[in-house]
Amino acid sequence: MRQTLTETLKTDRSRLRRAHEKGAYDRDSLDAVLDAMPMCHIGYQIDGKPSVLPTLQWREGDHIYWHGSSASRALRAMEGADVCMTITLLDGYVLARSAFHHSVNHRSAMIFGRAEKVTDTDVKKAHLKTMVDMIFPGRWDSLRPMQDQEVKATTVLRMPITEGAAKLRSGPPVDDEDDYALPIWAGVVPVSLQVHAPEPDPANQPGLAMPDHLSRIRIG
Amino acid sequence: MRQTLTETLKTDRSRLRRAHEKGAYDRDSLDAVLDAMPMCHIGYQIDGKPSVLPTLQWREGDHIYWHGSSASRALRAMEGADVCMTITLLDGYVLARSAFHHSVNHRSAMIFGRAEKVTDTDVKKAHLKTMVDMIFPGRWDSLRPMQDQEVKATTVLRMPITEGAAKLRSGPPVDDEDDYALPIWAGVVPVSLQVHAPEPDPANQPGLAMPDHLSRIRIG
Repeated sequence: MRQTLTETLKTDRSRLRRAHEKGAYDRDSLDAVLDAMPMCHIGYQIDGKPSVLPTLQWREGDHIYWHGSSASRALRAMEGADVCMTITLLDGYVLARSAFHHSVNHRSAMIFGRAEKVTDTDVKKAHLKTMVDMIFPGRWDSLRPMQDQEVKATTVLRMPITEGAAKLRSGPPVDDEDDYALPIWAGVVPVSLQVHAPEPDPANQPGLAMPDHLSRIRIG
Repeated sequence: MRQTLTETLKTDRSRLRRAHEKGAYDRDSLDAVLDAMPMCHIGYQIDGKPSVLPTLQWREGDHIYWHGSSASRALRAMEGADVCMTITLLDGYVLARSAFHHSVNHRSAMIFGRAEKVTDTDVKKAHLKTMVDMIFPGRWDSLRPMQDQEVKATTVLRMPITEGAAKLRSGPPVDDEDDYALPIWAGVVPVSLQVHAPEPDPANQPGLAMPDHLSRIRIG
């Protein structure tokens, strides 16, 4: 059976929609989102109810890591439990000709797994160094060395990147075929995270130069 | 008992830390975060496990709203169930003299409650209009009118803003007293969301002017 013209247009429109919006299950797509954005939201259960903690994540190979105070109720509740980590980058508002087809351009990643605590002090410290140097390349060695009591006061959790997916949308709106003839402005208003000029602590020792790693901070 | 100088300094430091970092339980602080950032992350349970959905929220008075496809498994799982909505704005990296005191400047809000479905078609449509006009002030009336089948295909959920809190951090790092003498650059690297110039859909009708509401988009 041959398609009518309307059917053909609908097919094209649906193909177009798929081209702009997709789920991706490959590690490269997932890692690209994880590595672009340290801020994440972790869903877990506490007292039998869902809770969502905003924190920073960093990836090392096939695991995703996060950390916090050892006294944190949230981190204690996560240890050994099922969690879901979601990372989202808002890339823009998508303005269509109908309210219904408005959307957002975004990159998001979702990882499911069981949170495991890193217990060895030296291993924990090595992970924290990796975190600092991922966000501020080369900063760790410039810092006052981390004390054992600080490592003890910090919980590092991780989970394997085994179950998860990326969801991505980019490009212009996809409207109903008939709506393209309407004189309604449609398009994208891009949004992105910007890193601004560093603001030195007024308590800094006089004459301190800005370290190189400040210019190597990337986000988004 | 009088404090020693070290104790006094410690007290000051702890006061300073509190000044930069605080939990806020008043509605004004909470609403300020909700109204600054439509992107949110909602924690819920599906198949007995935590999951976190990124979506957009909007506030109307004492309720917080979100929407999605009526076919969405996530929204179906949320209906009538306990959820936690977290909104986070990353305002900057806080670089201290020790790894331990690194932090992020941020504004976040967390709301707990039970998700309730808006069932009445007209009420639902009115909420969707409010959403569109909050993000793009005045856009709704310029659009092809929403069809009943589109309203039906959309689920609108809400919860009352009764249980929740804001968490805020701003300002320079707070280091251990002894570390201030070290020649280590400390400070803040501000980060913010930027709205960029609109990109018209290449499929727009020729000669369409950019509507005013594009210049009224605020985020962050």
